[in-house]
Amino acid sequence: MDFLELSDRIIDSAGSHKQISAAATNRRQAPTDFSIIYSKDLLPASGGEKVTKEFLHELLNILLGYICKSSRRSGKVLDFHHPHQLKEGLEGFSLQLTDKPETLEQILVDCRDTLKYGVNTGHPRFFNQLSSGLDLIGLAGEWLTSTANSNMFTYEVSPVFILMEEVLLKKMQGIVGWSDDEGDGIFCPGGTISNLYSILVARYYFYPEVKTRGMRALPQLAIFTSEHSHYSVKKSAAVLGMGSENVLMVKCDESGKMIPVELESSIVAAEERGLVPFYVNATAGTTVYGAFDPFNDIADICHGHNLWMHVDAAWGGGLLMSDRHRMKLQGIERAWSVTWNPHKMMGVPLQCSVILIKKRGLLQDCNELGAEYLFQRDKPYDVSYDTGDKSIQCGRHVDVFKFWLMWKAKGSEGFGSQVNKCLENAEYLYDQLQRRTGFELVFKNKPEHSNVCFWYIPPTMRGLPPGPDRDTRLHQVAPRIKHRMMEQGSVLIGYQPLGDKVNFFRCVFSNPATQQEDVDFLLDEITRLGNDL
Amino acid sequence: MDFLELSDRIIDSAGSHKQISAAATNRRQAPTDFSIIYSKDLLPASGGEKVTKEFLHELLNILLGYICKSSRRSGKVLDFHHPHQLKEGLEGFSLQLTDKPETLEQILVDCRDTLKYGVNTGHPRFFNQLSSGLDLIGLAGEWLTSTANSNMFTYEVSPVFILMEEVLLKKMQGIVGWSDDEGDGIFCPGGTISNLYSILVARYYFYPEVKTRGMRALPQLAIFTSEHSHYSVKKSAAVLGMGSENVLMVKCDESGKMIPVELESSIVAAEERGLVPFYVNATAGTTVYGAFDPFNDIADICHGHNLWMHVDAAWGGGLLMSDRHRMKLQGIERAWSVTWNPHKMMGVPLQCSVILIKKRGLLQDCNELGAEYLFQRDKPYDVSYDTGDKSIQCGRHVDVFKFWLMWKAKGSEGFGSQVNKCLENAEYLYDQLQRRTGFELVFKNKPEHSNVCFWYIPPTMRGLPPGPDRDTRLHQVAPRIKHRMMEQGSVLIGYQPLGDKVNFFRCVFSNPATQQEDVDFLLDEITRLGNDL
Repeated sequence: MDFLELSDRIIDSAGSHKQISAAATNRRQAPTDFSIIYSKDLLPASGGEKVTKEFLHELLNILLGYICKSSRRSGKVLDFHHPHQLKEGLEGFSLQLTDKPETLEQILVDCRDTLKYGVNTGHPRFFNQLSSGLDLIGLAGEWLTSTANSNMFTYEVSPVFILMEEVLLKKMQGIVGWSDDEGDGIFCPGGTISNLYSILVARYYFYPEVKTRGMRALPQLAIFTSEHSHYSVKKSAAVLGMGSENVLMVKCDESGKMIPVELESSIVAAEERGLVPFYVNATAGTTVYGAFDPFNDIADICHGHNLWMHVDAAWGGGLLMSDRHRMKLQGIERAWSVTWNPHKMMGVPLQCSVILIKKRGLLQDCNELGAEYLFQRDKPYDVSYDTGDKSIQCGRHVDVFKFWLMWKAKGSEGFGSQVNKCLENAEYLYDQLQRRTGFELVFKNKPEHSNVCFWYIPPTMRGLPPGPDRDTRLHQVAPRIKHRMMEQGSVLIGYQPLGDKVNFFRCVFSNPATQQEDVDFLLDEITRLGNDL
Repeated sequence: MDFLELSDRIIDSAGSHKQISAAATNRRQAPTDFSIIYSKDLLPASGGEKVTKEFLHELLNILLGYICKSSRRSGKVLDFHHPHQLKEGLEGFSLQLTDKPETLEQILVDCRDTLKYGVNTGHPRFFNQLSSGLDLIGLAGEWLTSTANSNMFTYEVSPVFILMEEVLLKKMQGIVGWSDDEGDGIFCPGGTISNLYSILVARYYFYPEVKTRGMRALPQLAIFTSEHSHYSVKKSAAVLGMGSENVLMVKCDESGKMIPVELESSIVAAEERGLVPFYVNATAGTTVYGAFDPFNDIADICHGHNLWMHVDAAWGGGLLMSDRHRMKLQGIERAWSVTWNPHKMMGVPLQCSVILIKKRGLLQDCNELGAEYLFQRDKPYDVSYDTGDKSIQCGRHVDVFKFWLMWKAKGSEGFGSQVNKCLENAEYLYDQLQRRTGFELVFKNKPEHSNVCFWYIPPTMRGLPPGPDRDTRLHQVAPRIKHRMMEQGSVLIGYQPLGDKVNFFRCVFSNPATQQEDVDFLLDEITRLGNDL
């Protein structure tokens, strides 16, 4: 039997709890019996090469089985169980940890079970989060990264990854529109931390004494952000000791964009109350509506008041890769800092987030402490590449390689097409919602990003007049449909209320696997599951 | 030819730039020619299963080649090149990113090159960092984690991983010595962030108004930590808006332990200056000396002054797994919070760090903002499992699975033996240093952790009297030997000055692959490389 066939057989049995053998990778010798082998038999154990190879081949077969299954529409998005059910141990899958080791056979079974009871975020019908899909090159990058198992603090231990970070940062700065002699930045663990960096560095820029003396040496600062912006701005203000109540929420228009005159008047009102405005967060692609704030207008206001302008493009940054859509971010080049998460719209596996800072050197000055056990000055190479002291972390996970590898594999053009396709899916959904009965858009304008927000109105509610009674009933529709979706496992989509709008669905497209047929399926499924409500 | 043999052949050629074919995984059909295939041909492309399987098999062969080579002593720890050399593109390895896609063949070559020019952190003779080694089960866990590509914010998208986090946190809390009805915590991106959490939560515990009103509403707070503690305490104070100068450094004894009466007098002196002490960081395993602070004495002082006691056991926490060594952490159970990095002494792949908080609910109250698009209260399951709002991040990488899988595979006992072995290596080095000519210990006591600090004194310096002249010369010895080590690539070890001590080597053991012969090799190599200085 051919290796691939054998491998297929193993893959197709993924999910079963039968004994696993290494037959596929080792036919001349007796198949390895993983039920009598333990982790201590793997490398670095002497003579452990053979078992190590067989074990990792077995694992690859399990992972390949999952990857292939995930991409098939016939498979489920999830197989939901309540916490107490999983904790009780389903079909022998025990989460408990013991004193004694388990065999490698049990470890492989645990791997299968972990995948089985998880959520299939790569499934073409997973619309629940801004990050979805499974990019195979990105995955290869992650596997290599964990095999290299290194740390970003110095060039000494991560020479290649440190240089890849530099290359990626320069590339992204160029795409944002900054000139060659400006631009700095760092990869960090998620968009919230990236936004936190922007406030941290902005505060240091205006008040460098804050580093040693703290907030009590400063006046009462104020931060401005739109009411539709991400909650990380408030969270960061709380963490940084600035106080969440000093984050002032600026009103948005109907489609979720910050209203410039409202920003101007908020700034003036804050000054009258004795606060000192210093920072404005504008958003490129709000979390729920996918709106883009008017960056040029905001930049004018920031310029007039000498405020730091940050653009949170965690979600919207990906559109910069598309010739068709990048004009939605016009003015972003005037920002002093930008958050951009390649793990969202660009499909890079989690985590991959960047903070870009226009002015060089600030990040280093703001964060450096020069620990001598890491950042010795008497090293035999250019120590400006020991970039770890720019970070608020010490050890830092390598998030750059998978992204660099994807860029090599797709080219800038490939990212552009990927973004275009996601936005085409959003347009298709927007059109369908207007054609089909029982659906209502949350806002009328064509979505700028891939977010589409809508209500499903069950037949019994279609005649109801607008008002509190209808709102109360409508508020329960999305959660109840979502509940049924989770039980069926056929598709997954998010919902939320926002301001005075009761619970509505938010569909987002970032998975290149999704096709128009999946959009149709989503609407059919919502109708099927919500028809009797 | 047998599959394993073929696979070996491919593995042995790792590093060469010859054309790569998928012969090993596909013999009946013509070998796949990766030089005409692109990432767009992989899944989710229609019909992409075959190419996907072949590509990932090829990648596995490359990674297996690296893993096997890393564990061989005959291989180099690193192949050093300066930043400008790597940037110029060595042997065709170009870091630059272009508009057009590269073929999968080029992608595989890039993977080989990335590994080739990186540092072999799993090599038995890599002693440069607190994290080293490559645990194969941990690696399997990381590969699965990236295949699942999920996010820790809610139970909805990461049911299994969220429960594994709960199981691990409970287990670790029990091992620290907390009772069943206390204990909370979260996995976070590194020990610095864990330490930051401890100060953040302590500040909130005493002054909950800080969340909304900021530091200006509070008195001038003071933090205490030893002069040998990690720089993350100061870094966190700067980030949190408390000011690094309000971190007061307490004197240590000769072996690096905080002196309790010095802590007491620092607290009293701070109060006299009008500061308000609220938090003490004690260290379990300092970064350079590996010292353990006297936790019970510190706990008594904290109790007397009503201060939050934190233990930074990022490095030393692993010793809790060993019956032989856990008494070094006596009193840690009295801490109100503990940082513990399984990615250091327990050998879990990067990143894996935990902050444990004794009092339940504080972490949630301190950080929650209740964003409605993620943390809806009307979900159909127990939403107390939506733990993401405890975090200062929004999206959070899954760091738990690899650790959970390693625990399953080794049992608590396996971690214990691993720790014991590392400390035996340290003892062996300590003994050898006393026997061999030309070596001098930085402090006389037997190391408590696996850190061993020493000078190498070249023959020409052995007769010199102590004093500034000798110090000036000795200060240059370690950097020069390290420089030669990097060029030769035979072994890697760190050095630094500390206080009034000039540059000395710090050897740390956390890699289970290291044997006594590697310790001998290290000392021989230092002698060989430094003999003529």
